[in-house]
Amino acid sequence: MRSVNPSTGDAIGADFPRSSRADLEALADTAFDAIDALADAPGAKIAGFLEDYAARLDSDRAGIAAIAHEETALPLSPRLSEVEFNRMTFQLRAAAECLRDESWREVARDEKNGLRSTLVPLGGAVVCFGPSNFPLAFNGVSGGDFCAAIAARNPVIAKAHPAQLNTTARLFAHACAARDGAGLPKAAVQCFYDCDADDGEALMTHAAVAALGFTGSRASGLRLKAVCDRFGKLSSLEMSSVNPVFVASAAGLERAEGIADAWAASVLLGGGQFCTKPGVIFVSGEAAAARIAERATQILRAAQPTVLLSEGIRTHLAQSLDALRGIGARLMCGGNQVGPGFRFEPTLCVLDAGKARANRSIALREAFGPLGLVIAIEGDAQLVDFARMLDGQLAATMVSDAADAATRDTLLSILRFKVGRLLDEAMPTGVTVSPAMVHGGPFPATGDMRFTAVGIPTAVKRFSKLLCLDRVR
Amino acid sequence: MRSVNPSTGDAIGADFPRSSRADLEALADTAFDAIDALADAPGAKIAGFLEDYAARLDSDRAGIAAIAHEETALPLSPRLSEVEFNRMTFQLRAAAECLRDESWREVARDEKNGLRSTLVPLGGAVVCFGPSNFPLAFNGVSGGDFCAAIAARNPVIAKAHPAQLNTTARLFAHACAARDGAGLPKAAVQCFYDCDADDGEALMTHAAVAALGFTGSRASGLRLKAVCDRFGKLSSLEMSSVNPVFVASAAGLERAEGIADAWAASVLLGGGQFCTKPGVIFVSGEAAAARIAERATQILRAAQPTVLLSEGIRTHLAQSLDALRGIGARLMCGGNQVGPGFRFEPTLCVLDAGKARANRSIALREAFGPLGLVIAIEGDAQLVDFARMLDGQLAATMVSDAADAATRDTLLSILRFKVGRLLDEAMPTGVTVSPAMVHGGPFPATGDMRFTAVGIPTAVKRFSKLLCLDRVR
Repeated sequence: MRSVNPSTGDAIGADFPRSSRADLEALADTAFDAIDALADAPGAKIAGFLEDYAARLDSDRAGIAAIAHEETALPLSPRLSEVEFNRMTFQLRAAAECLRDESWREVARDEKNGLRSTLVPLGGAVVCFGPSNFPLAFNGVSGGDFCAAIAARNPVIAKAHPAQLNTTARLFAHACAARDGAGLPKAAVQCFYDCDADDGEALMTHAAVAALGFTGSRASGLRLKAVCDRFGKLSSLEMSSVNPVFVASAAGLERAEGIADAWAASVLLGGGQFCTKPGVIFVSGEAAAARIAERATQILRAAQPTVLLSEGIRTHLAQSLDALRGIGARLMCGGNQVGPGFRFEPTLCVLDAGKARANRSIALREAFGPLGLVIAIEGDAQLVDFARMLDGQLAATMVSDAADAATRDTLLSILRFKVGRLLDEAMPTGVTVSPAMVHGGPFPATGDMRFTAVGIPTAVKRFSKLLCLDRVR
Repeated sequence: MRSVNPSTGDAIGADFPRSSRADLEALADTAFDAIDALADAPGAKIAGFLEDYAARLDSDRAGIAAIAHEETALPLSPRLSEVEFNRMTFQLRAAAECLRDESWREVARDEKNGLRSTLVPLGGAVVCFGPSNFPLAFNGVSGGDFCAAIAARNPVIAKAHPAQLNTTARLFAHACAARDGAGLPKAAVQCFYDCDADDGEALMTHAAVAALGFTGSRASGLRLKAVCDRFGKLSSLEMSSVNPVFVASAAGLERAEGIADAWAASVLLGGGQFCTKPGVIFVSGEAAAARIAERATQILRAAQPTVLLSEGIRTHLAQSLDALRGIGARLMCGGNQVGPGFRFEPTLCVLDAGKARANRSIALREAFGPLGLVIAIEGDAQLVDFARMLDGQLAATMVSDAADAATRDTLLSILRFKVGRLLDEAMPTGVTVSPAMVHGGPFPATGDMRFTAVGIPTAVKRFSKLLCLDRVR
């Protein structure tokens, strides 16, 4: 298996092997070796591994960023070589700090009764499936789930995303060097590049595998979730979200163009390939909706075609657009695949409230890429109804003026139960790494609304187990 | 449907209706009314409801305990009228305190980035299925899951256990009076008594239902879990555990009789109907195993037949014993159903290591009732192997002397990943309500090893959702 340069469609880099079911079983068997070693190592030793890993990455910044750029067509600078690179190394160092200060442990003591409870490692490996859209900061061998799994002292078995084989191999080489340098067992960090879907699912059932960290499509996520659920394995799944923006009537009339500017910029960010892309904007009032659609159309029409991360994403985007048009969405601009490589024109659609209401699952389906949908709503009462009908989301934004206060309060009281992160005015792209961040949300955005995938130490707790030592000497 | 007095086998008390699927749907529809009311009420108002509820229960202590005694045959005093009653009211008051001090919220602030994250209610009802064995302290309308769900400000829809219809109705009447007195909506606490299993599963899929709190059999738990998993509902499941005791060789030789005394007493406690009953004792060394079996046999033979909670439990116990004998367990005493009512003789079996190894799923299957199994192990190396093969458990106990230090350390390093609560010497029955308690453990003992069902505020977090307010005014 080889990677593809999405700017040209040409195969690039090394040829990577497909792991058989026996290969994956061997990886998992090996993971047994690292469970106790990681659980019992001095925190400073594992922290040292992460810090050395981060330093090795820093020293290969240009090389790594160049490969990631070639494989993803994401902008080299500042996106890959600075913003995402720094996020990756920041997370590794934050995980190291977490190992030193043990801030994830949640220790509770009851001396009178001889009880001490604390979070401990899982007693098994975490299988990390990284997504397509963050080759560094969410990569299975260097990203958020990797950091959280290691901070909680679990072995990691990472699967490279098929669009990032060479990037992953380069990162993994640094991870191995740092791991070996720190004297950790090889089984602490393992990686594979390709497998049959069935074999990946079988891996999750292995006795040495305790949990899954997955960021990707809803279809793949639900398939892996079903396996984990049946075998009682933990799973942290980030699956899909349209992160809707709700524009109340007064704000829409007052500030249509400014709202459109902010929204369109957020839709285009990262080529529309952020999990937090605000794919849908609900606008209360036909006039405001028309103005927002018109202005956003101008912006998207003026933007260059986006090179998408993979052919699969482009196919899915085209299918999503067809589905939208099939339920009566009007195409305002874009809509075409263009060459070379996997390019797609920035695309805007407008849909009436009635059609959106009748076809919610199509209107509110996540589609990666530079596609935005304006839904024109009759008024604030109907806007609120759309909030009520919403499935679980990572994020949602409320846009309101003083005259919209009642609508905004009602939206807030509904959306607090529908999303992991709720914003006033601000667009949801851009997820600060902070202990107060929540990158999570109700099903089907994620698998468990009690957790966040971003933010240390909170994210670490996903991959932990609660243990009480009861009168233990 | 009527309850049965397990001491006589006679139907007692009122006739309770079976709720249809439409009835359950109506309960769930109604629950919508309470979601915002509970989320937004002053904490003191909900706390006041719980405190008034506890006070009303206190004033009806003798009456409630008498009904519970008639329905369960558990000892009236001190078990029901004091120990379990006080635990029930203590938990209600601790939940009230948690509502006043908001200690479950896990607030994180990041002023620089305008972020504030906190746990919030689920935005839907918690369906609480109480178990058979704690008619008060784990009842769906008054027990641990009820307290946790209400403390996190969620409506509760409780299902009465079929063996506790009258007890539940009596408790529920007090809950309703306290709920109405506090001015909370009726939908804050609802209860039903009987339904088809299919309809109970369908209830979990309703949009107004967010989570399940279940304590009961593994078969029922797994069925409900599958529904919750498929529909993305949270579930807190406590399903089954044999809570094994591991006796290392030196301790077994030195203290066989004392160990047998402690173990047999723990097996008999509550008629052997505790989730934490140490149903299996692994003894390293044939001689020590024989002495422990002999002494425990004396104790169990001298004990009175136990009145079991229900005919179903007696049937399951008899089947479990047949299964043990089928894999070669030797019956040392007991083994018979006796009358009147649902009595069973205290029963002890001994099984060889080889047979246990070959038939682990039968040897280590939970069976409620006064049944203990001694497994005679060749030596400490094999003892450790049995720990390694163990499925997830609520608790396990290590019994060791100074000469056993290496074995004990190895057991600890294995069992920390296998159980929610690990004990040195002490038997696992008796679960202190403490913030440092863990009543949980890896699958299949529970559904999620990151949580505990006992201990406030930790247990409250099971029924919560994480929310970040991002630059929210």
